[in-house]
Amino acid sequence: MTAVDFAAFVDELAEVAARTLMPFFRTSLGAEDKSRGGAFDPVTEADRAAESAMRNLINQTFPHHGVVGEEFGNERLDAEYVWVLDPIDGTKSFICGLPTWGTLIGLLHNGNPTYGMLVQPFTRECFSGDGQMARWRGPGRDHAQTERKLKTRACEKLAEATLMTTSPLLYPPAELEAFKRVEGAVRLSRYGYDCYAFAMLAAGHVDCVMEAGVQTYDIAPLIPIVEGAGGIVTDWTGGSAARGGNILAAGDPHLHAQIVKLLAG
Amino acid sequence: MTAVDFAAFVDELAEVAARTLMPFFRTSLGAEDKSRGGAFDPVTEADRAAESAMRNLINQTFPHHGVVGEEFGNERLDAEYVWVLDPIDGTKSFICGLPTWGTLIGLLHNGNPTYGMLVQPFTRECFSGDGQMARWRGPGRDHAQTERKLKTRACEKLAEATLMTTSPLLYPPAELEAFKRVEGAVRLSRYGYDCYAFAMLAAGHVDCVMEAGVQTYDIAPLIPIVEGAGGIVTDWTGGSAARGGNILAAGDPHLHAQIVKLLAG
Repeated sequence: MTAVDFAAFVDELAEVAARTLMPFFRTSLGAEDKSRGGAFDPVTEADRAAESAMRNLINQTFPHHGVVGEEFGNERLDAEYVWVLDPIDGTKSFICGLPTWGTLIGLLHNGNPTYGMLVQPFTRECFSGDGQMARWRGPGRDHAQTERKLKTRACEKLAEATLMTTSPLLYPPAELEAFKRVEGAVRLSRYGYDCYAFAMLAAGHVDCVMEAGVQTYDIAPLIPIVEGAGGIVTDWTGGSAARGGNILAAGDPHLHAQIVKLLAG
Repeated sequence: MTAVDFAAFVDELAEVAARTLMPFFRTSLGAEDKSRGGAFDPVTEADRAAESAMRNLINQTFPHHGVVGEEFGNERLDAEYVWVLDPIDGTKSFICGLPTWGTLIGLLHNGNPTYGMLVQPFTRECFSGDGQMARWRGPGRDHAQTERKLKTRACEKLAEATLMTTSPLLYPPAELEAFKRVEGAVRLSRYGYDCYAFAMLAAGHVDCVMEAGVQTYDIAPLIPIVEGAGGIVTDWTGGSAARGGNILAAGDPHLHAQIVKLLAG
């Protein structure tokens, strides 16, 4: 059984998540602060409800598969197939009404990210990939759903690159210093878009994305999309990004190599 | 003739702009650097083509009206009615493929912002207002176009407020210091959304928006939307925002007063 066989099931998971989440989007909802005095980290009932709904569907359909999720922890991590779920990547965007959060659904095979999907239900967009190929579904010129292949763009020179990161406020001091070295060398730096920045990288509109201290569920589902579009996702030293940490994604491998070098100091 | 009489014509302007802009969105386009060695300031052919198309329509329909625009300067500024046009507010978002730029169309009556519209053609959203009332049109649950009134939310305490700004990189040092005072006092700070942040303020999802050094065409069209929804838009000292400068918008007048005080130092 290959990862591609799961594509229809992933669509079903995404549909269940969207049905659960959308009634909460752009309504007044009480965001709970789970960080107890630390940085503001909103977790909504929507997030929990959607993760529950997806877990139920997985447990019913593939009871031997594992699950990793933000809200309800890990189940059967030693299974051959493990699902990685983040119902709302970009909870701060979600509570601000911004249509640039995403539902992330990833599938690990023997620990390796093998399929991934990002769904944005308000814009009706879906970005998916299996590491070899990636595609976008969304509204076309006539607003009917359409589809196209995703392909990163060439950008060999750092001085011509567009860089995105969610917020410099999320970086610890040493990481912020390293990030600033890269930011100082690129043409344009843009903040604020969580997973959606990786989607724009896969689509060839942005050249590199950096994040500090992310979790598996924030990044594993995005790796097969970016790599399927021709890009590369690693940690800041060039190692595996599958378990999270400090993340560097680039559309052009030459650019990626230059940034890894610059981050090394 | 009241501003409301112009509403159908503004829809027509927005339609012309969207038809001109959308073929350029999410395609490879050469952004030109007009700032000559300064900060990266992309101006696209799309921007120029859309402003031309809107100006032509205005000149044909209301030859005695004035026009203010980013690309082609000012015409008949002493007219009773002056149109304020920004085809792509958020050009950096536009070139990054992000669906959170907007076409801004404003109408000044004797120099006062009297009607304004923000259109996002990809998400098919339209935010409009006349200073007394504001409304949103966009995709509803079933994806068909729907409509609702915009209303800012109450938020009396700075410590509970959500703040948005496009980027701290756009602030000169003294302004950055003042901004940081406000940022340090709010609950959540979020970067990256240009005009779309003001729309989310009008919709009651965000409590305050700050920007430094904006132009008339960046802000005049947004004032009747935010104020029509119950909010307040001024410069940082509490004076008129219609000519641009350092801008402070808040959904709750009590919050606005506190921030003006904090900005005064």
